Amino acid sequence: MERAIIEGVMKLLEEGVPLAELSIERIARTAGVGKAAIYRRWSGKEELFVDVVRAAEPPDAELPGTSMRDDLVVLLESLRQRGLLSRSSAILHNVHAQMKSSPKVWTAYHNLVVAPRRRLGVEVLRRGQRNGELREDVDVELLNDLFVGPMLLRSVMRPDADLPDGLSEQIVDTLLEGLRPVSSPPP
Amino acid sequence: MERAIIEGVMKLLEEGVPLAELSIERIARTAGVGKAAIYRRWSGKEELFVDVVRAAEPPDAELPGTSMRDDLVVLLESLRQRGLLSRSSAILHNVHAQMKSSPKVWTAYHNLVVAPRRRLGVEVLRRGQRNGELREDVDVELLNDLFVGPMLLRSVMRPDADLPDGLSEQIVDTLLEGLRPVSSPPP
Repeated sequence: MERAIIEGVMKLLEEGVPLAELSIERIARTAGVGKAAIYRRWSGKEELFVDVVRAAEPPDAELPGTSMRDDLVVLLESLRQRGLLSRSSAILHNVHAQMKSSPKVWTAYHNLVVAPRRRLGVEVLRRGQRNGELREDVDVELLNDLFVGPMLLRSVMRPDADLPDGLSEQIVDTLLEGLRPVSSPPP
Repeated sequence: MERAIIEGVMKLLEEGVPLAELSIERIARTAGVGKAAIYRRWSGKEELFVDVVRAAEPPDAELPGTSMRDDLVVLLESLRQRGLLSRSSAILHNVHAQMKSSPKVWTAYHNLVVAPRRRLGVEVLRRGQRNGELREDVDVELLNDLFVGPMLLRSVMRPDADLPDGLSEQIVDTLLEGLRPVSSPPP
């Protein structure tokens, strides 16, 4: 039932129906269910639409937990995969664009998807500070932006930018090492 | 004359006229000039609108040229100042939102403003690689994203994020030093 409703919304979006014209009534008709069935599961159009976006995006990856470095690579890699998919998938691209033009949907997406992902990233960094992998003299929220910012710039803000294999590892390792030239080892 | 035309567009935007409804004719009427005067200076609405955005934004800063580090701080500082202004200025905020919803204007803004700024940043980094301030084993385009990404994440993508004084210096210096804990000096 839930799947049929989500696919109904996707079908309407693929047909080019703008988000603003997607009423619960029209979704119910397309999915072949009653309006009550939709309201039993979702409190409104915004929450339903966030689940549609989630279904279109690749699922969040499991963290390996072997090290902060490995967990960060997996977190950045899922941003890279989402970027690649939104370049190749017309539906996902369209869904993201529609979302940004609707402040209510954007807020729901932010609260239900973006904020929990960010909290997870900050938690990984805190573990890294505790186990000695990450410096402790910089605010963990800023550290998160230093790791995530470059990947979001490439995947979201610069839709024409390269997202090559190995980019996640390169970002994490380069940031850990620092951008100053590596001094030659002492003789 | 040019100033009157740009102020005419700003006045219409402040009144809440959407970009899509801003015709050259209406702009000419508001500014009290003829349409020909507008077309003598701008090839179309898109180029004119980019100049309106430029007039609303703080001007690009002069690079001190004392070191790559100092130039980078100035480049990030101008992104921070633009972020602060778009939080406090309803016009600028509105202008940015309108721009993003119009692919033609966004492309013009990208070609005339964003791309030259990016080229300048890459040039600063190349100088840093030549004079030994920046590692040479990482692609300069990626290095640019590492410095600029965190500030854009804060200033553009997270409009509720903090943009405190000193943030530009902190980003540049933290990235140069690296995110690994600083090892204790040899005895």
